Amino acid sequence: MPETLAELSRFLESQGLPCLIDGDGKIEIHAANTLEDAGPGEISFLANRRYIKHLTSTKASAVVVSQDQSRPDGLTVLRCAEPYAAIAMLIVRLHGYREHPQVGIHPGAVIHPSAKIGDGANIQHGATIAGDVVIGRGATIYPGCYIGPRCRIGDDLLLMPNVVVYDDSVLGDRVTLHAGTVIGNDGLGYAPVGEKWHKIPQAGHVEIGDDVEIGSNCSIDRATLGKTVIGAGTKMSNLIAIGHGTKIGENCMLVAQAGLAGSVTVGKHVTLAGQVGVVGHITIGDNATVAAKAGVASDVPPGQVVLGQPALPIRQKRREIAILGKLPGLWDQFKKLPDRVKRLERHVAELTGRGEEDADA
Amino acid sequence: MPETLAELSRFLESQGLPCLIDGDGKIEIHAANTLEDAGPGEISFLANRRYIKHLTSTKASAVVVSQDQSRPDGLTVLRCAEPYAAIAMLIVRLHGYREHPQVGIHPGAVIHPSAKIGDGANIQHGATIAGDVVIGRGATIYPGCYIGPRCRIGDDLLLMPNVVVYDDSVLGDRVTLHAGTVIGNDGLGYAPVGEKWHKIPQAGHVEIGDDVEIGSNCSIDRATLGKTVIGAGTKMSNLIAIGHGTKIGENCMLVAQAGLAGSVTVGKHVTLAGQVGVVGHITIGDNATVAAKAGVASDVPPGQVVLGQPALPIRQKRREIAILGKLPGLWDQFKKLPDRVKRLERHVAELTGRGEEDADA
Amino acid sequence: MPETLAELSRFLESQGLPCLIDGDGKIEIHAANTLEDAGPGEISFLANRRYIKHLTSTKASAVVVSQDQSRPDGLTVLRCAEPYAAIAMLIVRLHGYREHPQVGIHPGAVIHPSAKIGDGANIQHGATIAGDVVIGRGATIYPGCYIGPRCRIGDDLLLMPNVVVYDDSVLGDRVTLHAGTVIGNDGLGYAPVGEKWHKIPQAGHVEIGDDVEIGSNCSIDRATLGKTVIGAGTKMSNLIAIGHGTKIGENCMLVAQAGLAGSVTVGKHVTLAGQVGVVGHITIGDNATVAAKAGVASDVPPGQVVLGQPALPIRQKRREIAILGKLPGLWDQFKKLPDRVKRLERHVAELTGRGEEDADA
Repeated sequence: MPETLAELSRFLESQGLPCLIDGDGKIEIHAANTLEDAGPGEISFLANRRYIKHLTSTKASAVVVSQDQSRPDGLTVLRCAEPYAAIAMLIVRLHGYREHPQVGIHPGAVIHPSAKIGDGANIQHGATIAGDVVIGRGATIYPGCYIGPRCRIGDDLLLMPNVVVYDDSVLGDRVTLHAGTVIGNDGLGYAPVGEKWHKIPQAGHVEIGDDVEIGSNCSIDRATLGKTVIGAGTKMSNLIAIGHGTKIGENCMLVAQAGLAGSVTVGKHVTLAGQVGVVGHITIGDNATVAAKAGVASDVPPGQVVLGQPALPIRQKRREIAILGKLPGLWDQFKKLPDRVKRLERHVAELTGRGEEDADA
Repeated sequence: MPETLAELSRFLESQGLPCLIDGDGKIEIHAANTLEDAGPGEISFLANRRYIKHLTSTKASAVVVSQDQSRPDGLTVLRCAEPYAAIAMLIVRLHGYREHPQVGIHPGAVIHPSAKIGDGANIQHGATIAGDVVIGRGATIYPGCYIGPRCRIGDDLLLMPNVVVYDDSVLGDRVTLHAGTVIGNDGLGYAPVGEKWHKIPQAGHVEIGDDVEIGSNCSIDRATLGKTVIGAGTKMSNLIAIGHGTKIGENCMLVAQAGLAGSVTVGKHVTLAGQVGVVGHITIGDNATVAAKAGVASDVPPGQVVLGQPALPIRQKRREIAILGKLPGLWDQFKKLPDRVKRLERHVAELTGRGEEDADA
Repeated sequence: MPETLAELSRFLESQGLPCLIDGDGKIEIHAANTLEDAGPGEISFLANRRYIKHLTSTKASAVVVSQDQSRPDGLTVLRCAEPYAAIAMLIVRLHGYREHPQVGIHPGAVIHPSAKIGDGANIQHGATIAGDVVIGRGATIYPGCYIGPRCRIGDDLLLMPNVVVYDDSVLGDRVTLHAGTVIGNDGLGYAPVGEKWHKIPQAGHVEIGDDVEIGSNCSIDRATLGKTVIGAGTKMSNLIAIGHGTKIGENCMLVAQAGLAGSVTVGKHVTLAGQVGVVGHITIGDNATVAAKAGVASDVPPGQVVLGQPALPIRQKRREIAILGKLPGLWDQFKKLPDRVKRLERHVAELTGRGEEDADA
């Protein structure tokens, strides 16, 4: 149902994000979109200066901008102190969250008689729930999902299609797992016997806190002993690998293709950017940030930003990169210095009557 | 059905790849194989000089080679200007493409009554098609696939097992997705609220052009707003991550484990090699090539080849690598230079009667 | 069923791992756990010095330690020459391996009439076995798995949920594949025609040796011609990509997110650490080790340990890293040297009466 820009502005104000309409408040808005893709009846936003060129060409009916943004003639803008927070609110308002089919427990789901499932579940055909599983209220489980024996899961679970949760996993409330993600598979736990590898039973499990959302096609090893932990409120993107026994704190953000070996300890509110790798048995402190593609090979103190392979404090690494970039140019300047100094030493030795040995010592 | 080498040679000529039989044209060929694995009745090829050692030991009945390749005694060869193009043609001729089971719409498939499916579909048991989906003619869908609400899909779709296509995705004609690939899952779209992350509805979708083939276990985020795009004719390998709102042009080639953050723009006919990473909001120009493992952190002009982390033009990066490799050796030569120059300055100051300060200035 | 520490000690001795109880041998043990998570009735271990701080705080009833490890007052320890091997044995003893549901061939499995399946199989509902497949005895196949036409598989297969094995794959005995892994999908096999890519039928297949275990969400391309090979006894973690025609030897260990391009040859007992990348057409010798995140761009001799991008022998790469780290500090010391030498040359030329050209030559 469309709302006028004035109504949306009042909504934002009610959410603690006051804003100012510069243009026509009676415009009706039914959706949010990007500057490039928006059309009439849509609202867009400008939060990154890179996209300022699209402000003049956008077909959006209105654009959320910062308070001091100049506006093209005829474009209605909504001025806010925090344009990104405002558009996020408007997306919730205009689009809402994905709605799931209300099928109850579909007869085509295969549920072990010993499983206990709370009220209000929607479990689609082709989902499997094994023995002794306990699931709270309001679970939504799509086709092709498998929940192994003895898993204990809280309320408002959301499993998109083809998610696999191995035996004995423990999930909190409001956990969302996207398609193809695997929780609790065996990790690389082998004892070397000569050149062969003997499998060690992976007797531990995985524990996932409340409000965790994990992207698609991720793999989280169960612990060999004890537990692998994903802390409450942590969000993960796609194709991420977490090794056995690794413990990730609360409210972390892991970007796609990050990989952590086993027995790593990650603090709270840590950011691991895309394709980051972390070796085993190390600790990353609270609020640390590991930049994209970094290879973390030693402990990272709280709050530190690291970059590179091996990862170093970002200022230090950037100086290395800068100097490395200058080296080819410097080489022409420096390569003859040893010979020139040698020759100078010879000449000075002649002049002073002292031997070269002294000069070269 | 086997064909003689002479018949295959005529077939190649008819396809614009004339070639010359050096040996016995009456040999019957029933399959293509590698030099190492081929046996009697099989044809092989030599397109990479690394494998020339296998030419004398191969048990293949014939080998496609370049025009000036010397041949071992007794081996029949087919000389072509383009051996790789020729063997590709012969593989099509001898082996054809994978044939799919003709099951029609299997009663074990779960298809929402509102879905519209074109003629000639083969949809296997255990596939799910949600409400308001529209699919063109000749779709082949394997078990375990899920197509979410409101997807619009062209003709000749091929989904291998366990592919998941989220709601509202748009796929062109002749799209092939390999097993386990996920299209249109939510990306990392959260607004920070203190140390917590509030989910932003991912209101956009994914659009995949005609003739796109995507490998197994890939993950392509839907856009937060607007669309994530994979351009027509683009081919992708396995375990590739594409972030929300990223737009990839036509006829690109993405190698395994490449990862692109959100809001990246990639031109036409770009190659992203294995394990490449690309940060958000940048542009890679037409016909650019990003070498394996490179980390692209700024725009890449059309046609440029880049390498390294951060990615640089390949010549520049190779000079850096070369110099870095020399540094340990150079260090012995250079480490005493500051002391030696200091000593020379002292001696020269004594000789000239000028102060050291001047020399050191 | 709990056993006393004395009984466990005798068991270890019977397995060739003699050990000594330092404390109370009558303690009953029912499980193994980590030092941090263990409670009464549980045995833990100390094999990595990093965790020595937990030895005083652990609530474990007993701890396996090295022979000369000092022990906190009141803690019972089991002294062994090889603590890690001993705890591995004890985990097997106390926990055993995962037990699978004994369902026989479930009526909800979809098995082509031409498939031949050996005795003792447990094939769950929602698994698919295509035509002309041959499987040995004792197969365990979880829901959502798909085995394509003409696959030939040995005894004691274990497929966790949603594994996909494409047509014509060959698997040995005792192969375990974890959830979501895909074997034998088409690789990036295209012939360039102008800017477009024409698909080459991928006529080869995948062959996996005995005792191979592969983690979750891996992708192994079939060969274009011939075969992609995973050697007997090789163990792989999660999210690993193997390109078409690559051959991996026996008893290798591949860590998560490693990626190998096509036509690579890897010897026996090679370790490829996390996020390693290997370019196509190269050879890695027996017993080589590729360190985490390395990018292997040329052959690696047997036994060599390599690191870096491009990968170099580890000692050489570490010297480069060390020197690179010193460069910013050295720069202040070196940057004025060319000017200072130039000035010296001028002064010396004045003193000797020789021209500067000579000095600068």
